[in-house]
Amino acid sequence: MTDTQNSRFDGDAAVSTTAGDLGAFEWAVSLVRRVDEASADLARQRHGQLTKPAGSLGRIEALGIQLASIARVCPPPVPQRPAIAVFAGDHGVVAQGVTPWPSSVTAGMVANFCNGGAAISVLARRIGASLIVVDVGVESALPLESGLPKSGPVDGPLLRRSKVAYGTADLSQGPAMSRSEVAAALDVGAAVAQELVGKGADLLVTGEMGIGNTTPSAAIICALSELSAHEVVGRGTGVDDEALAKKQSVVSRAVGRIGATASPQDILAEVGGFEIAALVGFIVGGAAAGVPVVIDGVITAAAALCAVEIAPEVLDYLIAGHRSSEPGSAIALRGLGLAPVLDLDLRLGEGSGAALAVPIIQAAAAVLAEMATFAEAGLG
Amino acid sequence: MTDTQNSRFDGDAAVSTTAGDLGAFEWAVSLVRRVDEASADLARQRHGQLTKPAGSLGRIEALGIQLASIARVCPPPVPQRPAIAVFAGDHGVVAQGVTPWPSSVTAGMVANFCNGGAAISVLARRIGASLIVVDVGVESALPLESGLPKSGPVDGPLLRRSKVAYGTADLSQGPAMSRSEVAAALDVGAAVAQELVGKGADLLVTGEMGIGNTTPSAAIICALSELSAHEVVGRGTGVDDEALAKKQSVVSRAVGRIGATASPQDILAEVGGFEIAALVGFIVGGAAAGVPVVIDGVITAAAALCAVEIAPEVLDYLIAGHRSSEPGSAIALRGLGLAPVLDLDLRLGEGSGAALAVPIIQAAAAVLAEMATFAEAGLG
Repeated sequence: MTDTQNSRFDGDAAVSTTAGDLGAFEWAVSLVRRVDEASADLARQRHGQLTKPAGSLGRIEALGIQLASIARVCPPPVPQRPAIAVFAGDHGVVAQGVTPWPSSVTAGMVANFCNGGAAISVLARRIGASLIVVDVGVESALPLESGLPKSGPVDGPLLRRSKVAYGTADLSQGPAMSRSEVAAALDVGAAVAQELVGKGADLLVTGEMGIGNTTPSAAIICALSELSAHEVVGRGTGVDDEALAKKQSVVSRAVGRIGATASPQDILAEVGGFEIAALVGFIVGGAAAGVPVVIDGVITAAAALCAVEIAPEVLDYLIAGHRSSEPGSAIALRGLGLAPVLDLDLRLGEGSGAALAVPIIQAAAAVLAEMATFAEAGLG
Repeated sequence: MTDTQNSRFDGDAAVSTTAGDLGAFEWAVSLVRRVDEASADLARQRHGQLTKPAGSLGRIEALGIQLASIARVCPPPVPQRPAIAVFAGDHGVVAQGVTPWPSSVTAGMVANFCNGGAAISVLARRIGASLIVVDVGVESALPLESGLPKSGPVDGPLLRRSKVAYGTADLSQGPAMSRSEVAAALDVGAAVAQELVGKGADLLVTGEMGIGNTTPSAAIICALSELSAHEVVGRGTGVDDEALAKKQSVVSRAVGRIGATASPQDILAEVGGFEIAALVGFIVGGAAAGVPVVIDGVITAAAALCAVEIAPEVLDYLIAGHRSSEPGSAIALRGLGLAPVLDLDLRLGEGSGAALAVPIIQAAAAVLAEMATFAEAGLG
């Protein structure tokens, strides 16, 4: 595989980043409005009338109330057309030994997504979700000579070519991205959300693929939470003690470069990643389009922290699909004040934990819509 | 509503308890065999070959391995025909003020199940499960004059008339059931499991309805765990401090009557309930039929404790759908050594938490069957 990490902003980047011209992200930020508390109140009241002891459906009730507030109607419609977007990018910091996997695996996994063999491919089919894979910063041109089967839908609609650059610079040495690269990636994500909802998606699921991306995610969470790298950095998809210490040191030093007045965009440029910035845009774009957005593991939670920092009203559109075993996940969710739907010791990413939560979110809406009230059932 | 609690073993009980003649429960106990460890090993190996870091799907991997061991093949088939059985019974101990709800609500909720308006009705539809409601000990004859709409499928296949008696005796005053009543209820449950699997069900979901039944469940868990009523008894679907203290005192005194050498059947007779005994039979029957059995809240967990005490091999067929907010739930699951799939502060029962877990269980099988290996994906 050719390492083109240093040849940034060349090739198909210029032609594919159409969203950048539209200012999709800033547009989305301006569109986000508060969820509807009146619908939430109606849902809360209805939960007290349905044939069950008040509160006995616990978090399912809270989810239903949230869905009503987002849909601005009670009962809220059951989300029937979930759409998963997996944003892919590579990371220069991989050169520091923060992961046992080579960057080439990112492109290989993109191919695997497109050929239906990855976990998120299987889970998308299980929940009847559409799946789109967005190359926003993979280090090599796709399709590759190696790693991509000859047949398969790689050139089909599954893969979206929106490459901003061929991977980030090494965040241990200096800024991972320029501010204009961050802006382009934010626009990609916002435009994807806008397009998916325009095509009928009524719930968005966040996913990502990027070898090494728990490192920039931990750095973002450190920067926004003011916790130490020691507390936030975890083993990602699997590093030994030595690599963990290295990862903590890399994150700690990189975060040290971030000033107290840095904006989320500044933080993304300094220590982020293309797929993470695109996820920030996607999350804001989903909220702007008025649909629930399901957060997955630590990478998408780091993006959610940025999104909420930029547009606080986004928070009420977010559902934490799960708490991953990566420590930054719990820290970010706590920072957001979100309780996860699932807690299954997942640490895969791809959107897998968020996708697994979708049937439960759908059930929460169905319960509000379809259960009988005590009066209707002739009870109480 | 007529209180017929004291007229036990009359009316339709004799004609409906057909399973009793067959000794369905003892037959099921004799049929339970160990799950297949070789298939579990194959699943474990396969999880190491699929395109993800080893172990990164956490509990989903463990579930897939368990499903393989139960199905005796790897990959295990995705359970496609889940069947929910809701066993219903009433409790003489309600006279002691252990619940704010009158016993008449049990029959009313049976009608609600049958008319599709209850939480479990909605959730059964969401997951595409069949639903059967089994009257094993409701205090009144069904259908009732009141509480049942004129129309609706109450006399249809949804409702199974297997009444053993019109509610239990008050366990605070003496044994809740006779040993022959316990045996009859065990047979009802085992026969229902056998029948459902015979009709094609490939996964069983446990459910129950019985006003007051967290009290006998807590007593069973106390008796089998040797913990105190203070630790085990909770607020059920909602009692105040005074009623909670009463409930603890009732449970404590009733458990005190149980000797050290009491069998699970003895415990069921002394402090159990018809629906709980039927659930014990259902759980053993499901394991005997070789399918996974999903446990719901504290009542079904109490039944699972009894089932495993009687037939230890049953344990490996059990999946804890969720941990309810009732303290006995966590205690019983700990006693069984089961980690719950969900933890959503549910305390409704009916099988609601177990039903919510079904899509995740199905996903665990699909992941094993459908994900590509690294070799297949040309990776690693």
